[in-house]
Amino acid sequence: MEQKIGVSTLPRFEAEDSVVSASVAAFKRLCEKENFDLAEIECVVLCTQNPDEGGLPHNSALVHAELGLSEDCACFDIGLGCSGYVYGLSVIQSFMAANGMKKGLFFTCDPYSRILNPEDKNTCLLFGDAASVTLVSDTPRYILSSAKFSTKGAGSEALKKNDNLLEMNGRAVFNFALQDVPKQIKKVLESAELTVDHIDLFLLHQGSRFMLENTIKRAGIPTERAPIKLSETGNTISSSIPLLLEKEIDNLPGVILMSGFGVGLSWATAIYKCVK
Amino acid sequence: MEQKIGVSTLPRFEAEDSVVSASVAAFKRLCEKENFDLAEIECVVLCTQNPDEGGLPHNSALVHAELGLSEDCACFDIGLGCSGYVYGLSVIQSFMAANGMKKGLFFTCDPYSRILNPEDKNTCLLFGDAASVTLVSDTPRYILSSAKFSTKGAGSEALKKNDNLLEMNGRAVFNFALQDVPKQIKKVLESAELTVDHIDLFLLHQGSRFMLENTIKRAGIPTERAPIKLSETGNTISSSIPLLLEKEIDNLPGVILMSGFGVGLSWATAIYKCVK
Repeated sequence: MEQKIGVSTLPRFEAEDSVVSASVAAFKRLCEKENFDLAEIECVVLCTQNPDEGGLPHNSALVHAELGLSEDCACFDIGLGCSGYVYGLSVIQSFMAANGMKKGLFFTCDPYSRILNPEDKNTCLLFGDAASVTLVSDTPRYILSSAKFSTKGAGSEALKKNDNLLEMNGRAVFNFALQDVPKQIKKVLESAELTVDHIDLFLLHQGSRFMLENTIKRAGIPTERAPIKLSETGNTISSSIPLLLEKEIDNLPGVILMSGFGVGLSWATAIYKCVK
Repeated sequence: MEQKIGVSTLPRFEAEDSVVSASVAAFKRLCEKENFDLAEIECVVLCTQNPDEGGLPHNSALVHAELGLSEDCACFDIGLGCSGYVYGLSVIQSFMAANGMKKGLFFTCDPYSRILNPEDKNTCLLFGDAASVTLVSDTPRYILSSAKFSTKGAGSEALKKNDNLLEMNGRAVFNFALQDVPKQIKKVLESAELTVDHIDLFLLHQGSRFMLENTIKRAGIPTERAPIKLSETGNTISSSIPLLLEKEIDNLPGVILMSGFGVGLSWATAIYKCVK
C-alpha cells in the first residue's frame, strides 16, 4: 500500500489545530522569508471545503482578525478541492488587479482528517492535513502566461461528503486524472505556443504516487522535471502544489506548469513565467 | 415586530429544496428573459455559506451537472454572506476577463433555514431562503465604475454558526451597518468623483427595515431612490440585492450603487454604470 500511495507519514490536525491556526502558522513561516508590511495587505482569499465554524463566518475573515489586518481589506473564501490552488491564484490575482490592490495573501487549508471514515483504509492512508500561504503582489516574480479551467460536474459522485464523511471512488478518480489531465496540459501548452521541453518544472497535484506516475507518463512529461514528493505529507488537497512549489522555488525555474485535479470533478492547468 | 423587521411572509425551503434545485429554478427564470446558448457558458460561480453536501463537492459543480454545461467551464464557490453579491460580481467579472471568458453565471443561494434556531425569534422572523442568478457577459449592460471591499474580522462574533445554529447579536450588526456602511458609500462616491445626486438607484442589502431606514438616513440617501422591499422575502443574505435588482432593472437606471454588509463582518460597495 505504501508503495502505491507513496506515503509513509501523514500530518494530522491535533484537537487544538484549525484552519485558522494552521493558516496563521503558515503565515508566520512566510514572514521569515519575505519582507512586507502587514498594513499593506488589501486582500485575503482562503480555499477550503472543510472550514472552521461551518464556514460562517468565512474563514478568511477569522484569519484577518488573527493577523490584525486593516479594515481596508477584501476577504472571501473559495470552495474548491485539489484544483483549488491553480484556480485560486488566478481568482485572487485577477480580482486584485481589477480593483487596484497591490498585496494580498492566498491561503489553502483543507483538513480532510475532519471527514475521514476511520474504516476506509483507502482514504485514511492517503490524505494529510496542511496549510499554505502565497504572497500575491502587483510586482510578482512569476506571471500567468496561459491557463485552462475545466469541470465535469456529472462525475462529482467520485469524491464527495456524505453525512460528513468522505466517500471516494478511487478508480473513477484515477481514470479521470489519467484521461483528462494530460489532455488539458497539452491544450494549455498549445495555447501558450510551448512544448513540454520549454517547461522547467511541472507541479502536479500530489494525489498518489501511482496516479502521478501514470499521469506524468501519459502526458509525456520527463520524470526528472515532475517531482513526486508526498511521502511525508500525503495528499494535502489544495495545499499539495504550494507545498511542492516551496521546495522547488529556490532552483529558480524559468517556466512552471501547475496542474490541479480532483473534487468536482474539477481540473485546472496554468503556466507561470519568471519575470526577468 | 413586523413593523421593525419589515417582513410579513418568509419563503422557506421545503424538504425537497436545495441550493442546487433553487439555483436551477433561478436559472430557468433567467432563460425566460435572456437568450443565450448554454454551450457558451464558460464560468459558474456560486455564493453560499450553507451549501448542499457540506460544500464538498463545490455546489457550482453540482449546478454544472444539472444544467449539462460544457466541460470547458470553470466552476467554484465563494464563501461570503450578505456582502456576497457585491464581492462575487467583481470576482467573477475579473476572473472571466483575465482568462478571456465571454459568458458566465453568478449564483447566490444561502438557505439560512438550515441553521435557524427555532427558539430564537430574532432570527426566525428575519431570514428567508432564496436564490438568484446573474448572467455575466463580455458585452455587459452595466460596467463596474468603482468599488470598495472591507473586512472587520475582529467583529465576526456578531453573526456566526455555532453547532450548526445561527447566533446573531442584532445590536452589534445594527451598529456596524449604521457606522461603517455610510462611510464606505461616501468613499466609493468620492473615488468615482460622484455625489449621491448622480446615483439613480441605491441597492442596499435588505437586512431589516429598521436597519435600512437608519442606514439610508445616515448616508444622506434620498429615500425614493433606495427601495426597501423585504416584506415578502425577508433577509435573503447574498440574494437580497439581486432580488431587488430584478424588480428595479426595468426602470433602466443609468447609475446604480450597490452595498452589501453582514457576516464577517464584511461590507462592499460598488457603482455600476449603464453602457450607453
